[in-house]
Amino acid sequence: MEHKVIARCRSLAGCTEEPGFTTRTFLSPPMHEVHQRLRAWMEQAGMSVRIDSAGNLLAAYPAAQPGAAPLFLGSHLDTVPHAGAFDGILGVVLGLALVEKLAGRRLKFSIEVVGFSEEEGVRFGVPFIGSRAFIGEEVADARVSDAIRAFGLDPASIADAQAADNALGYLEFHIEQGPILERLGLPLGIAESIAGQSRLAVTFQGRQNHAGTTPMSLRRDALAAAAQWICAVEREAGATAGLVATVGRLEVEPGATNVIPGAARATLDVRHADDAVRRVAVERFLRSARQLAQWRGLSVSSEPLLDQPAVAMDAAFVAALEQAVTGSHYPLHRMTSGAGHDAMVVARRMPAALLFLRSPGGISHHPDENVLPEDVAAALTVGMHFLEQMEARLG
Amino acid sequence: MEHKVIARCRSLAGCTEEPGFTTRTFLSPPMHEVHQRLRAWMEQAGMSVRIDSAGNLLAAYPAAQPGAAPLFLGSHLDTVPHAGAFDGILGVVLGLALVEKLAGRRLKFSIEVVGFSEEEGVRFGVPFIGSRAFIGEEVADARVSDAIRAFGLDPASIADAQAADNALGYLEFHIEQGPILERLGLPLGIAESIAGQSRLAVTFQGRQNHAGTTPMSLRRDALAAAAQWICAVEREAGATAGLVATVGRLEVEPGATNVIPGAARATLDVRHADDAVRRVAVERFLRSARQLAQWRGLSVSSEPLLDQPAVAMDAAFVAALEQAVTGSHYPLHRMTSGAGHDAMVVARRMPAALLFLRSPGGISHHPDENVLPEDVAAALTVGMHFLEQMEARLG
Repeated sequence: MEHKVIARCRSLAGCTEEPGFTTRTFLSPPMHEVHQRLRAWMEQAGMSVRIDSAGNLLAAYPAAQPGAAPLFLGSHLDTVPHAGAFDGILGVVLGLALVEKLAGRRLKFSIEVVGFSEEEGVRFGVPFIGSRAFIGEEVADARVSDAIRAFGLDPASIADAQAADNALGYLEFHIEQGPILERLGLPLGIAESIAGQSRLAVTFQGRQNHAGTTPMSLRRDALAAAAQWICAVEREAGATAGLVATVGRLEVEPGATNVIPGAARATLDVRHADDAVRRVAVERFLRSARQLAQWRGLSVSSEPLLDQPAVAMDAAFVAALEQAVTGSHYPLHRMTSGAGHDAMVVARRMPAALLFLRSPGGISHHPDENVLPEDVAAALTVGMHFLEQMEARLG
Repeated sequence: MEHKVIARCRSLAGCTEEPGFTTRTFLSPPMHEVHQRLRAWMEQAGMSVRIDSAGNLLAAYPAAQPGAAPLFLGSHLDTVPHAGAFDGILGVVLGLALVEKLAGRRLKFSIEVVGFSEEEGVRFGVPFIGSRAFIGEEVADARVSDAIRAFGLDPASIADAQAADNALGYLEFHIEQGPILERLGLPLGIAESIAGQSRLAVTFQGRQNHAGTTPMSLRRDALAAAAQWICAVEREAGATAGLVATVGRLEVEPGATNVIPGAARATLDVRHADDAVRRVAVERFLRSARQLAQWRGLSVSSEPLLDQPAVAMDAAFVAALEQAVTGSHYPLHRMTSGAGHDAMVVARRMPAALLFLRSPGGISHHPDENVLPEDVAAALTVGMHFLEQMEARLG
C-alpha cells in the first residue's frame, strides 16, 4: 500500500503549470486534473466526491449509520513553485489509503478526506484560503472570487465550504519539511503545537559614502551594522532551546561595488512553541540592533509584519495519536511544528492533530523532496490505530 | 574670483538629463550646453576652443612664443546620476579661472584647459573614456562610436584627441570626495599617489532551508556566513593603516522572509597606496572567507574583477605643488587618493599631479556636494604659484 501511496503522489506531481517542474497554485488549471484523478480513485473506494466553492475536494466515506459525525483526514493540494511531490498532497493520498484499507468496513463515524485548495499562499500572497473557508472565515476578496469563478465554481456559494458543526475533528498527515526526525532516526513525529511566529522588517540607516575615500574609522556602513546584527541574532537564537531566528532577506542600498552602503533592510523571522519566549527573544534582537546602531552612529527602525501566537493541537487527539504510535510499536516523539499547517487553522474550529513523516535530508519545497516507503507504511499503521481508537471511543 | 568659480559650477549643474537633478553622462544632450557655456567664457578669456572626436573640450591659451609646449589643466565634465555641482567640472572651471587671472599675460608655455568627456563610467560601465582617448588608447567600441556620432562628432577621427608629444604635464584640481581634509581642518591636499584597487566577487553557498523547521544547529545559512565574513573584513581592514575594504553589494538567494538563505553573493573592494599591502589584505580576506565557510560546512568561491596597481603622481610635479602650497602659506598635506581620477590615466603618458580641495561633510556624488569659497581661493592661489614655478623652471 505504501508504494501505491508514493506512486500516486509522484503521478499527481505531473499535474503542473510548468512542464518539467511541479508548480500548482490555488485553482490553477492543473488542479482540475488533480481533482479528476483523485475522484476516480476515491469513487473506486466507495466515496462520494464533491468540490466545494472554495475549491476544496471532499470525499465522504459513509458511516455504518446515516447522520454520523465526520472525522476529517487530509491536507492541501496546492504547491509552491518548483515543489516536490509530497508536501500537502501526501496527507490527502494517505487519507484515501486508510479508507481503502477499511475495504468497505463501516465505522461509527464517517470519514471525509479533504484536499484543501490553498495553503502555500503563492498565488495571492495570502495562505490557507482552503482551510479558512472550511472553518467559515471570509476568504473571497475580489481576486480570490475571480479565481474561483475562472475555475468554474461560484464564489457566492462559498458557505458550502464550511465543515459540519458535529465534526469529530481533523487529522493531518504531512512531511516534516525539516531534519529533526531524520537526525533522531525516527519515522514519525507528533506535533503537539505549532510554533508562534514573529516577522519584522529591520532597517539600518547609515551614511552612503565613497568606498575609496572614506577611512574605515569614519564610516557609517549600514551593511556592516546589519552584518554584525545578523551574527548577534544567530548567536542569541542558538543559545535558546527551541528558538529559531532567520534573516531571510537583506537589501542593500545603493548596492554598488564602490559605494559604502547607506541603508540595509533586513527581515527577521522568529519562532518558538512558547509565545512568551518568542516575544522576549524579539525584544532582545531589537535591543541588540539599537545598541550596535547607536555604538556605530547609525539609526535603526523596525516594523512588525506578523505576530502569530502558537497553536496547541487538541490534547485528546494528541493522546490518541501517541497511543496509536506506541500501540503500533513505533518510537514516540512529540515535537513542535516550526511551520504553519492547515491543522493550525482548522484547530480554531474543531479538535485537530498533525502527524509528521520524516523528510529525507530535511528537504522540502524542492524537486528532491522525498518520503521513505517504510515511513508511509508507519503512517498507515498509526492512522489505522487512530481510527480504531476513535471507533472504540464512540463505543 | 572664488565666488565666480562656484557660481559657474552651480550654473553648469543646470545642464542635466534629468530636471531637478544633475545627471550628465558621456555625450548626453546637455553636454552640448556645457560646451557652449564654457566656450563663451573661454573665448572671452582669449582662448581658442575645440571639441575633439572623443568629446573632450580643449581650450588653448597661447604662450608668448608659438610652438611652446602645453601644460594641461582640468578634469572631467560628466557626472554620476543625481550628482553635485563640483565633482569634475570644478577642475575645468578652476583652469579657466587661472587663465583669467593671467589677464592676458603670456607665459613660456601654453595652457590648455581640458574638460574630459567621460570619467565616471556611468553610460557604458567603462570609465575614463575621455582621458584614455587623450593618451591615445583605443576607446571607441561600437557603442561609444554610436554615441560620438549621435553627438555630431566623427569617431573615425578619434586620433585627434591625442595630446601633443611635447606636453609639459597635467595638473588636475578635484574635490576630495572624502572626509580627511575636513577632519584635519585643511583646505587642500596633494595626492602623491592614487591607491591601487582590487575588486572581487565572493559567493557563499550554503543550503536553502525552511526557516521554521530547521533548528539553528543544523543550518548552513549562507547569509549568516557572509555576515560573519563582512564583520571580519571590517575588523581586519580597520587594523591596517591606510587600508579600506568595502562590501558594497550583497545579494541573498532566494531572499524570502521564511527561507534560510542558500546563497549570498558579495562584492569586495579593497584599496591601499601600497600594492603589496593591498594584495596581502585580499589574501587575508579570502582566507577568512574560506575558514569560516569550512567551519560552517558551506562552500565559498571568489572571482577577481579588478586588480589595478597604485599610480604614483609625478615626483617633480608633486614637489612643485608642495612648494606652491607652502609658498602660499597654506598648511601642507600629502595624501593618497582612494578614488581613481583622470590624473591616474594621464600619468601613463605625461607628468601628472592632483590637488584636492576639502569636501564639506566628505559628501560627494550627491546634490549636497559642496566646496568652500576660501578653499577655492586657496586652490587659485596655489595654482598661480604652480604656474609661476613652471615659468621659472623653463627660464
